[in-house]
Amino acid sequence: MIQRKLEVNYQPFDRTTRVPPGTTLFSAAHWIGLPIDSTCGGRGTCGKCKVQVLKGQAEVTTADRRLLRQTELDSGWRHSCQARVYEDTTCVVPQLLRVPKAATMGFGRLVLVDPNVRKVFVELAEPTLHDQRSDVARLRDALTAEGHDMKAGLAVLATLPTVLRDAEFKVTAVLAGDELIAVEPADTRDESYGVAFDLGTTTLVGTLMNLRTGMAEAVLSTLNGQAGFGADVISRISHAMEGPAAMRELQAVVLATMNEILCGLYAETSVSRERVYEAVVVGNATMLHLFMGVDPTPIAVTPFTPAFLEPVTVGAAEVGLDIHWGGKVQTLPSIGAYVGADIVGGVLATGIARDDQLRVFIDVGTNGEIVLGSSQRLLATAAPAGPAFEGSQIRCGMRATEGAIEGVQLGDSIELQVIGGDIPATGICGSGLVDAVAQLLLVGLLDYSGRLKTPDHAPTHPLAGRLIEVDGMRAFQLADGVYLTQRDIRELQFAKGSIATGIQVLMGILGVGATDLDQVLLGGSFGSYLNPESAKVIGLVPPVDLDRIISVGNTAGEGAKISLLSYRERQVAFDLPAVVEYVELSGRADFNDTFVAVLRFPELEAVG
Amino acid sequence: MIQRKLEVNYQPFDRTTRVPPGTTLFSAAHWIGLPIDSTCGGRGTCGKCKVQVLKGQAEVTTADRRLLRQTELDSGWRHSCQARVYEDTTCVVPQLLRVPKAATMGFGRLVLVDPNVRKVFVELAEPTLHDQRSDVARLRDALTAEGHDMKAGLAVLATLPTVLRDAEFKVTAVLAGDELIAVEPADTRDESYGVAFDLGTTTLVGTLMNLRTGMAEAVLSTLNGQAGFGADVISRISHAMEGPAAMRELQAVVLATMNEILCGLYAETSVSRERVYEAVVVGNATMLHLFMGVDPTPIAVTPFTPAFLEPVTVGAAEVGLDIHWGGKVQTLPSIGAYVGADIVGGVLATGIARDDQLRVFIDVGTNGEIVLGSSQRLLATAAPAGPAFEGSQIRCGMRATEGAIEGVQLGDSIELQVIGGDIPATGICGSGLVDAVAQLLLVGLLDYSGRLKTPDHAPTHPLAGRLIEVDGMRAFQLADGVYLTQRDIRELQFAKGSIATGIQVLMGILGVGATDLDQVLLGGSFGSYLNPESAKVIGLVPPVDLDRIISVGNTAGEGAKISLLSYRERQVAFDLPAVVEYVELSGRADFNDTFVAVLRFPELEAVG
Repeated sequence: MIQRKLEVNYQPFDRTTRVPPGTTLFSAAHWIGLPIDSTCGGRGTCGKCKVQVLKGQAEVTTADRRLLRQTELDSGWRHSCQARVYEDTTCVVPQLLRVPKAATMGFGRLVLVDPNVRKVFVELAEPTLHDQRSDVARLRDALTAEGHDMKAGLAVLATLPTVLRDAEFKVTAVLAGDELIAVEPADTRDESYGVAFDLGTTTLVGTLMNLRTGMAEAVLSTLNGQAGFGADVISRISHAMEGPAAMRELQAVVLATMNEILCGLYAETSVSRERVYEAVVVGNATMLHLFMGVDPTPIAVTPFTPAFLEPVTVGAAEVGLDIHWGGKVQTLPSIGAYVGADIVGGVLATGIARDDQLRVFIDVGTNGEIVLGSSQRLLATAAPAGPAFEGSQIRCGMRATEGAIEGVQLGDSIELQVIGGDIPATGICGSGLVDAVAQLLLVGLLDYSGRLKTPDHAPTHPLAGRLIEVDGMRAFQLADGVYLTQRDIRELQFAKGSIATGIQVLMGILGVGATDLDQVLLGGSFGSYLNPESAKVIGLVPPVDLDRIISVGNTAGEGAKISLLSYRERQVAFDLPAVVEYVELSGRADFNDTFVAVLRFPELEAVG
Repeated sequence: MIQRKLEVNYQPFDRTTRVPPGTTLFSAAHWIGLPIDSTCGGRGTCGKCKVQVLKGQAEVTTADRRLLRQTELDSGWRHSCQARVYEDTTCVVPQLLRVPKAATMGFGRLVLVDPNVRKVFVELAEPTLHDQRSDVARLRDALTAEGHDMKAGLAVLATLPTVLRDAEFKVTAVLAGDELIAVEPADTRDESYGVAFDLGTTTLVGTLMNLRTGMAEAVLSTLNGQAGFGADVISRISHAMEGPAAMRELQAVVLATMNEILCGLYAETSVSRERVYEAVVVGNATMLHLFMGVDPTPIAVTPFTPAFLEPVTVGAAEVGLDIHWGGKVQTLPSIGAYVGADIVGGVLATGIARDDQLRVFIDVGTNGEIVLGSSQRLLATAAPAGPAFEGSQIRCGMRATEGAIEGVQLGDSIELQVIGGDIPATGICGSGLVDAVAQLLLVGLLDYSGRLKTPDHAPTHPLAGRLIEVDGMRAFQLADGVYLTQRDIRELQFAKGSIATGIQVLMGILGVGATDLDQVLLGGSFGSYLNPESAKVIGLVPPVDLDRIISVGNTAGEGAKISLLSYRERQVAFDLPAVVEYVELSGRADFNDTFVAVLRFPELEAVG
């Protein structure tokens, strides 16, 4: 049974939110971008986040007892990061002395800048015969006084004697969580950066984020260097199966590509590598395995079990990523073997797990990952779509680069949108393919079963002349030397049929229909470029009003950026695998039946 | 009358050790890591520690009479925990019949075997389409079911896909605390080892401990490879001051020595490196800094602040120690810059912090570390004694190696105990020096101010002929070419005066006198070999009854072993720096006054 949401009202702003029981007052405020003071980020150590509860029971916690006076407890003051909501609550939030930075990210998500990496400037008392504390203890005491826990590994510990004395004990401590990763001379709080990586099978995107302002300093993307080992994850895994050397090779290649991106980001921004303390990395489970040097082989064969789905934290030096030598690499968790950290990033970026609206989020690609639900319940699955959406296995298919037809409009004549502008088309990419098929359906040159007409069937059609034959197969001519064959259309039918089946299976489990859907979100590097109308016409997405089908961009990368900027959002991401139910399609009896049923194109009344 | 060191030989191992009179056969065996069964920890109640004395008188004790048959008594069976050695002894130790769950260690401390490193054998459910948990989650769930928390770093995580599948999901998890450090195919619980290291400035001792049985498998000691950079910590620090390369050199040398010891331990026991999961390391603060590659320079100059006193946990691979590649290195904490982890080990091994008795524990060496108190309150300090006790700065001084006079008995004639047996003396080591000075006092050839007599002062003394002059300085001839000069005696006076001052200052703070002391414990690699009576005669230790002055062996190493075998005891050690009050002598006004007062030798009425 699903627990009802509780209403929390914050005064004097009169802002209200609805949250699941057990949520802290601090988190609930954070989710609606309402600032509550804190230096420890809700870890329960700084004692700054107190609020006055006016309505609703809030138990007195250990932290409350330790840090508040009895008169304060009596008048309802509690530490909001510890106070959990179990009934409708109203509380007063004290005025902030400083206004925290917030950034709008992902799909309209307001994110308070409160990164895992924090810099604390301290002026330490110099040692005397009456104060012989060790360097570590001296620093820890100063940080504790400001509300920060600290543990120090050997590498940073070894820097202390020199740094403290050279800087006359005025230093900036860099903390990742409660781990001390660097101690820098003087006050360097203004320079704090992190990098968000989206490791796509095809493309790697790196964004250098200013952790102080919450702004992106620069973005660079490049082809995944692993492309030479095959276009999709299965071919990468096949290479990895050749043995440890092959696996190390794949790891080295993706790492080299990431370091190349970092090198470019540093050059473009003049940010020093020594000021970049953390990388948050998302990608599908296979990419994360390869990046971490972990054998992904079992992902490729039934019953598809990865070595890890958990978030992994590892030293940048351990994996060889060119950020600060003491910096950290953090991956987001995966939900299943084929619903990876990129989708967790997407869930974070779209807010689908937090909102009451019923939505389906689809990342279209070689695998179509689908997340359906709301804050009440969330389901996820992966549908094997094959390479058609990437322009592969298509007679004139190509990747979305210069010369590719990416948009098609049919009427009395043909209108093509070609990447690179006014140049001759040399092929067709995924979004062009979807457009072309949708347009052929709309102008009546393709029947709902997916069969192309011949000039005989439509002799008077203004485009009848483009219905040709290629190698004895029906085809439609798009441009000089660029055409769509009957087999291409079948490939697309199988691809969209697989994803549509995944959506239907999830809707069946949840007991909802297309009319119940508030929104359909198209994400991922390919999904974002898809024409929503065409997606609906070919039946890739459920038949909802067109204004409810929304392209949400590179949600994976946005999720990584959000996790980099907000420690609390990162915790939410970490918890998602426990929240989202993973549905494995390959074992299901209803998959094949549904698949056959959705292979046809939908007979839509009207589009709009 | 001072008694010489006694030889104890253990059969069937044919292991020999040399101990002060009064040591029990049980303790003497324990100090050299030789297993004698016991569950009561040497209280004489369990009756399990019996040995058969073949050579040497061993009195029949009350416990013997109570627990042994007359025929056993007649054939020399005695309880080794009660049998004190008063002459050279040979005994037979029975084979161990069972694996003890407890071990007696240190100074009569019964330690329950409950190590930080645990091995858990699990038979995991194999993955199916209905159970697609990741390898990590599958293992964690199984461990959780058995009550173990687990976190896994990348290195061990990367081994999971292969190990789990090759072993058909029947594996042994190796946990250090809650950290997964290895996963091994099949059931390997029987093979679990750790190593305890005592990093002395002069000598490094490594003991390979069986974490399953609690027994020492082998002990090896060797000279600290750093000896070439100077005999004491200050000269080592001076070398480190030459820069990072010099510091790395010192680190490499101590590490090489440790790995050499490990290599020997593996060869001697046939234990595989891959089955040694943890090293507990003690040593003075400087040695620990050098071992960890942390600059110790600030330790050498006022106000004497080390980089860390805290216990450090670090991967064996990170420091380069040749145990399991995923293994851990754990240091014990230090109390102050000159009261290091070796003394924390000593406090653990002696139980001084746990007992109600008022005791003083003294680790005699270049620095004399002193701990005074009981479970009520504990004080610690370090007194700079100089190198006299190590046989350095002494005209005929040498380290305690072959040819060194280690014991002196004066009467009508002179009787020398020389290391190596019946060979000519080539010099005198620390314990011999203390003996010689004590004996000179007792036979009246040295006055209480520390001035040697001349033949004119004692013309009729049977040893008058040995009062000679060397380079215009009074001296006493011990053997051909080996003599003690007036200056040597002054050196010893300064050394013992410094330690005696430290003891007096601590007694002053605690408000106690010598008569309040229940026991004086002499520990450390040098202190254990010191003749208790001589230590009392020269005034190194407070004037208490002789049977209250006890040699407690290599307490530092024992403390490391205890911390290796018992997770709980390790926690106690971790807490000691907060319990023990560190007293800095260099800032104190009373130090110099007391020092001058205790330079003279004490005019004791009688010794006994």
